[in-house]
Amino acid sequence: MKILLLGDIVGRSGREAVVEKLPAIRERLALDFVVANGENAAGGFGITEKIMAELLRAGVDVVTTGNHVWDQKETAGFIDRTPRLLRPENFPKDTPGKGFGIYEAPGNRKVLVANLMGRLFMDALDDPFAAGEAILAQTGLGRGADAVLFDFHAEATSEKMAFGHVFDGRVSAVVGTHTHVPTADTMLLSGRTAYQTDLGMCGDYDSVIGMQKTLPVQRFIRKMPTDRLTAAEGPATVSGIFVETDDDTGLARRAAPLRVGGKLAESWP
Amino acid sequence: MKILLLGDIVGRSGREAVVEKLPAIRERLALDFVVANGENAAGGFGITEKIMAELLRAGVDVVTTGNHVWDQKETAGFIDRTPRLLRPENFPKDTPGKGFGIYEAPGNRKVLVANLMGRLFMDALDDPFAAGEAILAQTGLGRGADAVLFDFHAEATSEKMAFGHVFDGRVSAVVGTHTHVPTADTMLLSGRTAYQTDLGMCGDYDSVIGMQKTLPVQRFIRKMPTDRLTAAEGPATVSGIFVETDDDTGLARRAAPLRVGGKLAESWP
Amino acid sequence: MKILLLGDIVGRSGREAVVEKLPAIRERLALDFVVANGENAAGGFGITEKIMAELLRAGVDVVTTGNHVWDQKETAGFIDRTPRLLRPENFPKDTPGKGFGIYEAPGNRKVLVANLMGRLFMDALDDPFAAGEAILAQTGLGRGADAVLFDFHAEATSEKMAFGHVFDGRVSAVVGTHTHVPTADTMLLSGRTAYQTDLGMCGDYDSVIGMQKTLPVQRFIRKMPTDRLTAAEGPATVSGIFVETDDDTGLARRAAPLRVGGKLAESWP
Amino acid sequence: MKILLLGDIVGRSGREAVVEKLPAIRERLALDFVVANGENAAGGFGITEKIMAELLRAGVDVVTTGNHVWDQKETAGFIDRTPRLLRPENFPKDTPGKGFGIYEAPGNRKVLVANLMGRLFMDALDDPFAAGEAILAQTGLGRGADAVLFDFHAEATSEKMAFGHVFDGRVSAVVGTHTHVPTADTMLLSGRTAYQTDLGMCGDYDSVIGMQKTLPVQRFIRKMPTDRLTAAEGPATVSGIFVETDDDTGLARRAAPLRVGGKLAESWP
Ligand SMILES: [Fe+2]
Ligand SMILES: [Fe+2]
Ligand SMILES: [Fe+2]
Ligand SMILES: [Fe+2]
Ligand SMILES: [Fe+2]
Ligand SMILES: [Fe+2]
Ligand SMILES: [Fe+2]
Ligand SMILES: [Fe+2]
Repeated sequence: MKILLLGDIVGRSGREAVVEKLPAIRERLALDFVVANGENAAGGFGITEKIMAELLRAGVDVVTTGNHVWDQKETAGFIDRTPRLLRPENFPKDTPGKGFGIYEAPGNRKVLVANLMGRLFMDALDDPFAAGEAILAQTGLGRGADAVLFDFHAEATSEKMAFGHVFDGRVSAVVGTHTHVPTADTMLLSGRTAYQTDLGMCGDYDSVIGMQKTLPVQRFIRKMPTDRLTAAEGPATVSGIFVETDDDTGLARRAAPLRVGGKLAESWP
Repeated sequence: MKILLLGDIVGRSGREAVVEKLPAIRERLALDFVVANGENAAGGFGITEKIMAELLRAGVDVVTTGNHVWDQKETAGFIDRTPRLLRPENFPKDTPGKGFGIYEAPGNRKVLVANLMGRLFMDALDDPFAAGEAILAQTGLGRGADAVLFDFHAEATSEKMAFGHVFDGRVSAVVGTHTHVPTADTMLLSGRTAYQTDLGMCGDYDSVIGMQKTLPVQRFIRKMPTDRLTAAEGPATVSGIFVETDDDTGLARRAAPLRVGGKLAESWP
Repeated sequence: MKILLLGDIVGRSGREAVVEKLPAIRERLALDFVVANGENAAGGFGITEKIMAELLRAGVDVVTTGNHVWDQKETAGFIDRTPRLLRPENFPKDTPGKGFGIYEAPGNRKVLVANLMGRLFMDALDDPFAAGEAILAQTGLGRGADAVLFDFHAEATSEKMAFGHVFDGRVSAVVGTHTHVPTADTMLLSGRTAYQTDLGMCGDYDSVIGMQKTLPVQRFIRKMPTDRLTAAEGPATVSGIFVETDDDTGLARRAAPLRVGGKLAESWP
Repeated sequence: MKILLLGDIVGRSGREAVVEKLPAIRERLALDFVVANGENAAGGFGITEKIMAELLRAGVDVVTTGNHVWDQKETAGFIDRTPRLLRPENFPKDTPGKGFGIYEAPGNRKVLVANLMGRLFMDALDDPFAAGEAILAQTGLGRGADAVLFDFHAEATSEKMAFGHVFDGRVSAVVGTHTHVPTADTMLLSGRTAYQTDLGMCGDYDSVIGMQKTLPVQRFIRKMPTDRLTAAEGPATVSGIFVETDDDTGLARRAAPLRVGGKLAESWP
């Protein structure tokens, strides 16, 4: 199966780049399935129902999120009727929404997508490693899923690499999101799980992680409150990873970065 | 000037890769100056005087460090007689060693190298932005230096990007170190400062940030103390950034990643 | 029932003060049950089997712990045969030991003691609020227990006060441990749960949280590694809270601090 | 000199308690000087010019603050014309306001009040220990000041005790603020500096650190955003420490807690 996973979509610039470019990317790479992290799609903060619909129309199959999932007040209200929108699985019980789902891909194939969140340098949550194990205790490659994709939304490279190795050989891909900067360590782990520490953002890289520079810089230097941050408005880079899986095993055959548009050097799989 | 900056050298594997490959890289890229971060060179923890000498012999001109600088007991003893070894400038006053220096490059050119450390998700230190300003108040491009290189040893992508923008147009390069994973955002900022959020490590990427996997994974999952971590021993990738500066302005003309050997895809400038 | 709960016993000084003074305190206050936090009993770091036995002989009924529970290598080996030694319940599944137990008190009464650990400014763990609820789903006041005592080992006053209110009216006492400084907010919450944000330490207060001052001070000022900290050796204050429960409801009738010996002003219930 | 230092005043309830009770306390204790931390005086968040005036009228001589100092937009505008309002000294250079001042007390005596902020588990700032030293390099006991009072606004008990010991024998008192819970470790350190790890809050203790309980509890349990917190409205306890200094040396003769009103047990020096 040919799969694309995109990093955090940030603001209008990131959204427009995805909406505009994804159809051509889908065609050029003959994609079967697309996942994108949408936690910053609404002006940098969360996601609305309207934006969710827009992303689905543009060819995204599943939208994952992270710590910003509830930034828009409406999200807790519509997430339960939006099965293609995930929030981290290891949120407290009774959290609206769900953390994983099994979705149809062409050729009657099934894709399990799970969204988990790290804890190092992040808010306190239940163990994401245990949550990943609990998902795989229910289903997995050859047990209801032809591909298994884990979006591990986390800050620390150590926790992300550890997460990759723990699930290596049991899922098709473990990709990190959240830092908004793509890493250059795209690889197949030894068990043939595709891995990249962070997918980076679909956003304007002439910024501070997608936000206009002035206020974030002030926060670091002056240590006084500022106005609310606003998303940078320059041209966005669409940033993610292409993974080709083996339909027999569900494991990865190949992984390669995709970066198109904006400030970053273009890279095609 | 043609400059190479290398990320954190981790353990024997990282060290041997640098020692073995750097001479050929120096020649192939016609390098004038090489900086490497050595804070993990001694088995993953700090640096010894012997290793320092080994790196200089291999063609490194200046070694920067970070939070691991004092992991080896001997380092505080020899750093003051080792002008090519830097520790973060924004450590407390009276800390042994120094945080920046001006070094000779071929053609009677001068290179200012400074080592600063971030604070977000890291131990408390004095303001690195102010420390960078204080250095540039004394010297800089056209004022004693033909190139100015800032190694910003920091965890958070936001602090690193902010740091880049603050010094953009005033230094030749701002490069991040510390996360041990290279980022794929090599670029010239708008003021022609070369920038990459993290250089990654010179180390074995089949690991958890350069360490053998078992114990770090256990720490995340079991939350019990483990034995001391040991550096991974597989083949290392030499990872860094090539920067070409304009000798008139000292600003960057070009920046491109270098990644050679080990698990990561090879990349030459 | 008349109950005493003691804060973290730190090092030899704290241990000796408890061993020496507890028998007389037990008698003077006509105590039915004594809980003490022993996570720092062994030189400031963890607890040994020998020290555990010593504390039981001195009249402690149950020893709770916290983040330092595994500081001594032997502890994971003996905890499973030591039912009166608890570790935080919200540690990962498969952690040695257990987080709560029901113990005999005079007059055929039962005391449930539970040990939970907070997350704010601490290492990542599963939700202690949910863990407390899970315990109370199995047993509780009038359902197998005549008194219920929660030792909430946590850093932040906000998390501790929130924890108290969540379990108010359902347990006899919620007491905080970990900061090594007693708080002066001993009170009955509105549902008649006894509460104190922190019990303080049984240790030498002429110190930095029980440790000899020089090295901790150096760590704050110099930001360089130091030798291992050692427990302060001056006379210790035995510090805790006295709680009298109503045998009909198991809720608290009265709560008052106990502080005896050492640098702090003496306080008897 | 007879001095009272009060902890963080939280919201209307805390403010009204101070305004109502301070005149009688001043008289009963024959106070010469009163310091109060006002960082939460305006509904729990910051301080306004009007509230500042109200506190001065009630008999507060100097108002210190902390991390919440800028919560009200107007504060940065009026602080420079309000010499009796301090913000932490170790904020970045160019921060509005100042971190210490020398004030008149009856009998032509001078009181140096300084406000410093800790770093452990708090936002990154420059070294408060160095900032304290820098103040004492300019002035101090017998060098322009008859009493020296340090309000160390910090989270961690370890950093606070270390701070006390570092300045022991050189200042009249080191008192902690910020956690909103008073500690029961009022003492004279060995050099006769009065010390208390935290003064607690002047606020309603039937709360989560002064805030109405429901939303803070939800934040810990549900991990979803809530409405803005509001200050608890029940009767407040006025909480602080009484320090009597020796006019010859400026050091402390006696220190004792003051707690009046509200939920906490009353305590008079
Ligand atoms: Fe994001
Ligand atoms: Fe995020
Ligand atoms: Fe490193
Ligand atoms: Fe580092
Ligand atoms: Fe402790
Ligand atoms: Fe602890
Ligand atoms: Fe406060
Ligand atoms: Fe505060």
